[in-house]
Amino acid sequence: MIRIGIDAMGGDYAPKEQIQGAMLAIKKIDDIEINLYGDKDIIAKYLTDSTRINVIDAKYAIPMGEKNPIQAIKTHKDSSMVVALSSLRLEENDAVVSSGATQALIAGAHLLVRRMKGFKRTAIAPLIPRADGGQTILLDAGANLSIKPEYMLQQAYFAKIYAQKVLKIENPSVGLINIGTEDGKGREFDQEVFKLFKETDLFTFYGNVEPKVIFDPPCDILISDGFTANIVMKSVEGAAKGLAIMLKKHLTSTFFGKIGALFAKKNLMNFKQHVSAEEIGGAVIFGLYKPVIKAQGASKAYGFYNGIRQAANICREKVFETVQEYVESQKDLEDE
Amino acid sequence: MIRIGIDAMGGDYAPKEQIQGAMLAIKKIDDIEINLYGDKDIIAKYLTDSTRINVIDAKYAIPMGEKNPIQAIKTHKDSSMVVALSSLRLEENDAVVSSGATQALIAGAHLLVRRMKGFKRTAIAPLIPRADGGQTILLDAGANLSIKPEYMLQQAYFAKIYAQKVLKIENPSVGLINIGTEDGKGREFDQEVFKLFKETDLFTFYGNVEPKVIFDPPCDILISDGFTANIVMKSVEGAAKGLAIMLKKHLTSTFFGKIGALFAKKNLMNFKQHVSAEEIGGAVIFGLYKPVIKAQGASKAYGFYNGIRQAANICREKVFETVQEYVESQKDLEDE
Repeated sequence: MIRIGIDAMGGDYAPKEQIQGAMLAIKKIDDIEINLYGDKDIIAKYLTDSTRINVIDAKYAIPMGEKNPIQAIKTHKDSSMVVALSSLRLEENDAVVSSGATQALIAGAHLLVRRMKGFKRTAIAPLIPRADGGQTILLDAGANLSIKPEYMLQQAYFAKIYAQKVLKIENPSVGLINIGTEDGKGREFDQEVFKLFKETDLFTFYGNVEPKVIFDPPCDILISDGFTANIVMKSVEGAAKGLAIMLKKHLTSTFFGKIGALFAKKNLMNFKQHVSAEEIGGAVIFGLYKPVIKAQGASKAYGFYNGIRQAANICREKVFETVQEYVESQKDLEDE
Repeated sequence: MIRIGIDAMGGDYAPKEQIQGAMLAIKKIDDIEINLYGDKDIIAKYLTDSTRINVIDAKYAIPMGEKNPIQAIKTHKDSSMVVALSSLRLEENDAVVSSGATQALIAGAHLLVRRMKGFKRTAIAPLIPRADGGQTILLDAGANLSIKPEYMLQQAYFAKIYAQKVLKIENPSVGLINIGTEDGKGREFDQEVFKLFKETDLFTFYGNVEPKVIFDPPCDILISDGFTANIVMKSVEGAAKGLAIMLKKHLTSTFFGKIGALFAKKNLMNFKQHVSAEEIGGAVIFGLYKPVIKAQGASKAYGFYNGIRQAANICREKVFETVQEYVESQKDLEDE
């Protein structure tokens, strides 16, 4: 059985949607059992079926907009997030899923789960939808704002294993996010990464990729430093939100437009679902001791279930174990 | 009369759309005259009204995807782009508009127009639409991939004058593109810029702004280094294109959806126009000796006309002269 720890109290709609997501996951996935961390009394209200679900009392919920994440993790040992994360090193779970405050989760993961032995820098890797229905792995979406190019080799390799084993892409290729497609484009940093990636045989390197093909890139993995990839992610998010508002405004600005929107309602909903994070799953933190999945803060039950499914896939396919083996086999990277 | 030089041969639909755009501008704007640079024989085919339009023969057209821009500028002295740009230092024009190859235009502007005296680093500043119908100035969209924080003071000041005089925003505020809104967010570079901007009285500093509000920012100007702002621009472009493709696919995937799309056709067109670069105008290069406007490569007549209108506004409102005065008045920035 794969054991998944769930931070039941983190998220805009916690704990209701998290608990419903957990029950849904138990129904749909045979080989998992769930440890649910949260306020026992509140959980009791929503947990209508406790098959393969164990509840562990952890009353405090770290607030969603937590401004001082490290402080919060250190102070609130009784929080659902801290108790859930701590369970990984105690070997009580194989993965943890949380839709709690992002910065607190990252800080908590680094303090309580810590890195995989020999893995230099973690990376946060959300999935972004492809126009053709597939997915692209984006990293590092914010774990390390600046990083040594050589550490990105490990991160890209991790993404490759994840793409192969979880996304079932046979020969995933890696693209370097850049402002132009030609060799030698970008900052000195980008040029160094390009050179390293060109020489490696750890993965297939596609070359430079501009974010103007963000929904249709010629590769499966898009990588840059944690500042740049975070800016890409937030720009895409902003563009999608802004365009949706403008589209709605224009569509409903006339009588005929409103009728049209009504006829097209189901299709518009399908479109929304296509680009929705709910459908796709959460962001995985690469390079930790064990998997931590950050589901969207606004997750509803189905979105949270998708995060659990993702966690189960990662464990079942031994993604972390495979990378751990590789990291241990290579001794050529200098210690920090 | 404001004299505007036009690179008639640059652009995906050149010279036809450029010439039609020029004639439209002459009709709509009273105080301009146009110098049209291009192949005289080809121009003669499209120029049906030469009122206040003077044609100067320059036969070579620098190709749109030019891979070696500096080389192209240096070699092709007879190109429409080179002759047009050279006219500025010769005091033959007050501004130049081109929809030719971006990198060649930037290289040409630096070689042939050169910087305003005392202006440390130029910046490319496109306008991006706001959801509420306004516009945001984005810079630097790619002139300097890395830059000293103190040089960004001049760039932001330039943007402020442009916003005041051309966009008619009374007290424009400047936001620093960042991965979080709190003070102290971002790379060391961003923190330095933040500190400088916080202390300056050259313009109103809003603080850090995340690109997830790219279509609805709480400020009028969004600034970062040339790498980051270019990544934002390309991410937004990519998201808009990708979402449009997905929307179309979903809308027309069923019979009812098709009917709906038909009813909403006019509204969908309005939406497209709202976010279209055609409607908004080109990117201005800040900090040159005189204004160079880069209209979209795919400009049609109306889009190109908008670039000309923008150039005329900049000249009429003495944007460059105002900044020049300020730069001359301050001697505290060290020489390079």
